[in-house]
Amino acid sequence: MQELLLGVLGAGLVDPAAPLLRADDLGVLRGDGCFESIRLGPTGELDDLAAHLDRLAASAAALDLPTTDRGAWTDLAAELVAAWNRPGEAVLRLIVTRGLAEGAPPTAYALVAPVGAEPLRQRRDGIRVLTLSRGVVADATVEAPWLLGGVKALSYAVNMAAQRYAHAGGADDVIFVSADGQLLEGPTATVVWLRRGVLRTPPAAPLGILAGVTVRRLFARAGEQGLGTEVSRGTVDDLHSADGVWLVSSIRLAAAVTALDGKPLPVDPAAAARVQAACGG
Amino acid sequence: MQELLLGVLGAGLVDPAAPLLRADDLGVLRGDGCFESIRLGPTGELDDLAAHLDRLAASAAALDLPTTDRGAWTDLAAELVAAWNRPGEAVLRLIVTRGLAEGAPPTAYALVAPVGAEPLRQRRDGIRVLTLSRGVVADATVEAPWLLGGVKALSYAVNMAAQRYAHAGGADDVIFVSADGQLLEGPTATVVWLRRGVLRTPPAAPLGILAGVTVRRLFARAGEQGLGTEVSRGTVDDLHSADGVWLVSSIRLAAAVTALDGKPLPVDPAAAARVQAACGG
Repeated sequence: MQELLLGVLGAGLVDPAAPLLRADDLGVLRGDGCFESIRLGPTGELDDLAAHLDRLAASAAALDLPTTDRGAWTDLAAELVAAWNRPGEAVLRLIVTRGLAEGAPPTAYALVAPVGAEPLRQRRDGIRVLTLSRGVVADATVEAPWLLGGVKALSYAVNMAAQRYAHAGGADDVIFVSADGQLLEGPTATVVWLRRGVLRTPPAAPLGILAGVTVRRLFARAGEQGLGTEVSRGTVDDLHSADGVWLVSSIRLAAAVTALDGKPLPVDPAAAARVQAACGG
Repeated sequence: MQELLLGVLGAGLVDPAAPLLRADDLGVLRGDGCFESIRLGPTGELDDLAAHLDRLAASAAALDLPTTDRGAWTDLAAELVAAWNRPGEAVLRLIVTRGLAEGAPPTAYALVAPVGAEPLRQRRDGIRVLTLSRGVVADATVEAPWLLGGVKALSYAVNMAAQRYAHAGGADDVIFVSADGQLLEGPTATVVWLRRGVLRTPPAAPLGILAGVTVRRLFARAGEQGLGTEVSRGTVDDLHSADGVWLVSSIRLAAAVTALDGKPLPVDPAAAARVQAACGG
């Protein structure tokens, strides 16, 4: 069974163990590019491929990257899914880098790998979370397109460093807060909290955070689960007084926050089941 | 003549046209790694190799990357310099990525490429600069190591986007300003301004900006040129009222700012010559 599949846009499957990128690809020299992570469910269906391709195209446009062929991505995804023969859940990653120079052809490829044990454990058992400052003022990215608000760029070093910081302190993940105390997002997830039957999440565009594909699905299906939805700003205090808090993302789906900054948060199993069901988990 | 040389740490020179990095290297998937750019002068000397190796080691430590062998870097640099046979100036880049997984061996390599015409033109003729918000509060990185203040990480997407934004507006480069109006740094350079015979630059550690290797050389040699030095915070107004403003970096050395946000700045040729001489240009 394959542990990893690699496909190059427009060229199809290649050996994932063979090097693909040149040493001077700007994707590595500058973290200059964008990506998407898409869940491949156990029965071989991709979650929200169209929405992820939309966001990939929006990220590329914001980075002034050349347009890649949507049909070619769809074909490549189908080829990879057909070739994937492991049981369980997997993740399909789509990557576009600037390539060797500004104006050169982008480097564009897709990877499939199994979902590790840890995201599945976190989905099942919940997560302990630290709130950490992101150093930015809320709404700083409005009218400042160079700050790449809402762009899923390859430059995730701070996101990864924040998660390492949390792990070193015995936590599983992070919720970033603006310098002026507003809830932003997780390093790889959207923040959602429940208050009196209504799910809430911060507004993506003004806060410069990623518009989550999975939270959109959750909110679209919340009504079927008897839950209301509202896009609204929040604070750490709002999380401590909430009826439930989740980090929502494409692979882990909804991970219930069981402790925030060391303080236990309530997890109502019935509400958690509804949120998980609406996320498709 | 070679247009590009590539050496792998611990393995020596390899073909730069052959792919080096796997598609799932975290250097590209997450911009997770660090780098240095070092000027190789026309007579084959590397500027401040020791200081750049110090900073690379500090960046790697801040990112919890495994330690790489300083002697091996020195040997690899010497091997590349010996093999480089083009006239003119070149840039030696050192790159360390997290490799294939947290805890895996890092991907570590070095590239040599010619310095393009544009940096040399900017050094000679000066640059037009836009000031742009970085969205962050000054001093946000103090006691927030996950924000990677002062770390030369591979995650430069915002830096590159800011430079593209400047280019689209007819400028050459950018000076980032904090949300509370303090001068920070350029996307790839340190800000220096001259006021009454004293060169000034903002303090790196509290502001979370990169501690520039070239500005350190400039300040160490400024006395020989009859110039004082001071590390002090500043504002955009300080630049408009300065006797000269420069962006200082390893490859371009000192580029005089001839216009800031569309307003001409004075450039005193005598002062500019002294600054350039102290930078080693």
